[in-house]
Amino acid sequence: MGNRKKTAIIVAGGSGSRMQSAIPKQFMDLAGKPVLYHTIAAFTTAYPEMEIVLVLPEQHISYANNLLQAFDNIPAITLVKGGETRFHSVKNGLQQVQGDAVVFVHDGVRPLVSPALVRTCYEATLSHGSAIPVIDMKDSIREVTGEQNRAVDRERFRIIQTPQTFLSELILPAFELPYDPLFTDEATVVERLGHPVHLVQGEESNLKITKPLDLVMAKAFLDLRG
Amino acid sequence: MGNRKKTAIIVAGGSGSRMQSAIPKQFMDLAGKPVLYHTIAAFTTAYPEMEIVLVLPEQHISYANNLLQAFDNIPAITLVKGGETRFHSVKNGLQQVQGDAVVFVHDGVRPLVSPALVRTCYEATLSHGSAIPVIDMKDSIREVTGEQNRAVDRERFRIIQTPQTFLSELILPAFELPYDPLFTDEATVVERLGHPVHLVQGEESNLKITKPLDLVMAKAFLDLRG
Repeated sequence: MGNRKKTAIIVAGGSGSRMQSAIPKQFMDLAGKPVLYHTIAAFTTAYPEMEIVLVLPEQHISYANNLLQAFDNIPAITLVKGGETRFHSVKNGLQQVQGDAVVFVHDGVRPLVSPALVRTCYEATLSHGSAIPVIDMKDSIREVTGEQNRAVDRERFRIIQTPQTFLSELILPAFELPYDPLFTDEATVVERLGHPVHLVQGEESNLKITKPLDLVMAKAFLDLRG
Repeated sequence: MGNRKKTAIIVAGGSGSRMQSAIPKQFMDLAGKPVLYHTIAAFTTAYPEMEIVLVLPEQHISYANNLLQAFDNIPAITLVKGGETRFHSVKNGLQQVQGDAVVFVHDGVRPLVSPALVRTCYEATLSHGSAIPVIDMKDSIREVTGEQNRAVDRERFRIIQTPQTFLSELILPAFELPYDPLFTDEATVVERLGHPVHLVQGEESNLKITKPLDLVMAKAFLDLRG
């Protein structure tokens, strides 16, 4: 199991409505290249043999194809059309996974994931079956129940990132389950079959770009990397 | 009670170690003015009669005084030295509260609080005794217990901001309690005396500046305001 096939399912299904922009956020410019370019490059830098499956709304597929072909160093990408929910989009992407693999499911709009984190997720998945990157919570929080609210200890909680990473023999059967709205991410689907998930240390810079200021933040992180 | 005295206790006790900077973050430049200038101005813009009590480490008091005197439109400020913990710093500041007042306790490093939010907190405190600004949680989270972890519904939780705002007759007796490490903010102190706290809608831009990238973000928010 020391050198498994690796497939990254990159989900870029957002319509861009929260960005107040006609261009969906996965295609917006970040330091001279589309957000999705950075995302894909992190995975292929980590492992040049990485298979990339890009899941997009049907109406964006030819645009994405043209956009990414402008970059020499992007490998062959399998483009797959998205589904009604994230669950259905990931399920469509999983149909491209062949044989025993380590499967990374990643948000297209997390372009600053580092190759080091991709490798950490791979190694941890070989040892534990899964790897979910998380970071500490920095804000104080309260729990609200009806009209009541109470302080809770933020140290009990972790913020979840992607790539959520799994052995194919865990994630493929899990996505045969019927859809449930409680499936908020891939980890919750795999857990439904009784497999606990393994957490690894994520990265503060691995932010999700959902609004214009997130792009400003992403640019600042890139500048820090130099 | 319709027009109470208003006292803002602005706590700026940080040593700046997390900023990798010799200048504590409350004194750093944000769009041409010190962070603390912006913070104070938000309160005096909301209510020109606002009394400002600034709690600082003893070794920063004369520096802060000189720095802020360079700005004409900053009112008289009472400078108070901080204590061992935030609880002790706030307690020192509360000694300046005279008579029946609405007391705002605010992080000095939240310079982008809007005058509108200060007014919302004042009005809500007149009606409910307290006002704690909170915002929704945007990230997915997991709860960790020993080796176990489980998905939790982020919609149950809110992220806490400041100004935490109280009637003086609630907060003054609460801070006579003996110190407890479980006092993570002013709300938890007031609750200890059996008073539930009232939540109000905070602002995403009301961020806390604790690291260099937060200053980049704050500048971007200021640019958006134009």
